[in-house]
Amino acid sequence: MRILADAMGGDNAPFEIVKGAIDAVNELGVEVTLIGRGEDILDVLRKQGHDDLPKGVTVTHASQVVEMTDSPSASGREKPDSSMAVGLRMLAAGEGDAFVSAGSTGALLTGAILTVKRVKGVKRAALAPVVPTKTGGSVLIDCGANLECKPEYLLQFGAMGSFYAQKVLGIDKPRVGLLNIGAEETKGPELLKESYKLLMEAGRAGIIHFVGNIEGRDAAFGAADVIVSDGYAGNIFLKTLEGVGLFYADMLKGMFTKNALTKVSALIVKSGLRSFKKKVDYTETGGSPLLGLQKPVIKAHGSSNAKAFKNAIRQAVNFSAGAVIPAIAENIATVTGGEAAL
Amino acid sequence: MRILADAMGGDNAPFEIVKGAIDAVNELGVEVTLIGRGEDILDVLRKQGHDDLPKGVTVTHASQVVEMTDSPSASGREKPDSSMAVGLRMLAAGEGDAFVSAGSTGALLTGAILTVKRVKGVKRAALAPVVPTKTGGSVLIDCGANLECKPEYLLQFGAMGSFYAQKVLGIDKPRVGLLNIGAEETKGPELLKESYKLLMEAGRAGIIHFVGNIEGRDAAFGAADVIVSDGYAGNIFLKTLEGVGLFYADMLKGMFTKNALTKVSALIVKSGLRSFKKKVDYTETGGSPLLGLQKPVIKAHGSSNAKAFKNAIRQAVNFSAGAVIPAIAENIATVTGGEAAL
Repeated sequence: MRILADAMGGDNAPFEIVKGAIDAVNELGVEVTLIGRGEDILDVLRKQGHDDLPKGVTVTHASQVVEMTDSPSASGREKPDSSMAVGLRMLAAGEGDAFVSAGSTGALLTGAILTVKRVKGVKRAALAPVVPTKTGGSVLIDCGANLECKPEYLLQFGAMGSFYAQKVLGIDKPRVGLLNIGAEETKGPELLKESYKLLMEAGRAGIIHFVGNIEGRDAAFGAADVIVSDGYAGNIFLKTLEGVGLFYADMLKGMFTKNALTKVSALIVKSGLRSFKKKVDYTETGGSPLLGLQKPVIKAHGSSNAKAFKNAIRQAVNFSAGAVIPAIAENIATVTGGEAAL
Repeated sequence: MRILADAMGGDNAPFEIVKGAIDAVNELGVEVTLIGRGEDILDVLRKQGHDDLPKGVTVTHASQVVEMTDSPSASGREKPDSSMAVGLRMLAAGEGDAFVSAGSTGALLTGAILTVKRVKGVKRAALAPVVPTKTGGSVLIDCGANLECKPEYLLQFGAMGSFYAQKVLGIDKPRVGLLNIGAEETKGPELLKESYKLLMEAGRAGIIHFVGNIEGRDAAFGAADVIVSDGYAGNIFLKTLEGVGLFYADMLKGMFTKNALTKVSALIVKSGLRSFKKKVDYTETGGSPLLGLQKPVIKAHGSSNAKAFKNAIRQAVNFSAGAVIPAIAENIATVTGGEAAL
């Protein structure tokens, strides 16, 4: 399998990206094409002790870089030779199995939809990270690609998230929940009331296993394997989860580093602390797959270090190997929200 | 000061409500009128060892109880003699300084708006709890009263939240932030882009101290003293904050109760753990004031125990004493979102 990696995207590019990519080659047995300014990539490789290209690594030169200040909608047109644009074109042309970038989310979304294109029948592509919950992790779909949604979009998010949870996370019958402000079906803004009805119908038709509305609290506790949301509320949910995790990790640190005795205490609960840290550590979860496209695209965290980028590549491998996209392509026509289809 | 308490509202009514009210009388030096089924209240008082009405406590009989299954919009009409309806009428008639209820949020909102009425010029009343953040606490407004909002509502939420933070939390110049999916002013759904402009104008006019968009992550870290949101996203934020707090508290507990040695470790960091627990413990924060009404109304947590209800009464006392409502009444005309006003 060949992973196409945007070597120039993210706060720590290209150094950490290149390092993470090489780690992925060594640990996961994949091939990686690093895309970006050739001289910069080679320079970083030398700094990391590689005078030659490591086995399994190739470099494709792209002269431009998408900056965070670039307009997401215009970056493809204004920077046709950016590492992101080149990578997406290579993916569309079949020169790799998946594309991973830690660059601008907006530019990646726009570029991927234009270049890689949506699966026929899919109304909107959505960002679907796996978020840490008490029971392990849940697919959150959408978390920011679509701020203004229609009920049919949320219906399809539910189905796509369910296929991903089945094929990549290995959950046989994923519980699909709608992120809402209360459990009753009459709760929430109009969008959610209508979405609830469509998801319920899809549940009755056996396409998904819909467990109803779930509140943020229940979602954090793992009440659903797939958390369906519009991109606005989903993003608030995700960032809050992340923020509170960091805030508590901080408090814990303060608690244990107070004096010599509390440091001893930390040693005693070391394994517990480690698993705690692992839960709140976003470098463990990798990136967010973009679901609904014809090829696998992964958005890695903007602040990815080598480990986070390696894990995003791991996710790209699982995404590609899991055959999620064929499942979406085969089944999405039955999930349109139209009366004929259900 | 006399606090009117809905003795029948909430999961643990009337036992815990009555207990919390008596604790409030003893600890806070207020008078409390318990409203609800007379015989039930007297029965609970006896069980708690009071053969006579404790000093400072009076009882007003109300024959009906609003149930969670009652329609919020119809409960006032269908149950005119509920403890909630009677309490709200007493408040409107000046028979008490504030009303506290742990009953149905929807019914309380509808009833309060109809009976206690909005301050002239206020477009929408909003729920404004103080949420725990890294730096202490922030006013979150709205968190569920208004699911579908207009920019002018969010503008007024910002102003009302700011007055509350000034008068009740004692923050001289509260930082008002707009809960959004990114920091840039171009971020978010249309509602937030427009709200941003109005809040910015109000900031320039010196009515509030607007610090711009804040993400859920920053909000959890205390980036603003007042977090402005529509009721939908605000509710998702609040419930997630609450859920993650409980989830981490749970993980910590598991970590420390593993064996004898980890239990010793827990003893060492006892004070740290206590302050951690206090942060995530919602019985500490009391309830959510409903801002924009002519009299103070507090929604206590539905699962309030005696301590939580006592703290909700404490909040009602501070709300009433802080003269937030006069500040809103005097200034809200300048915060309408209309061109003439700013």
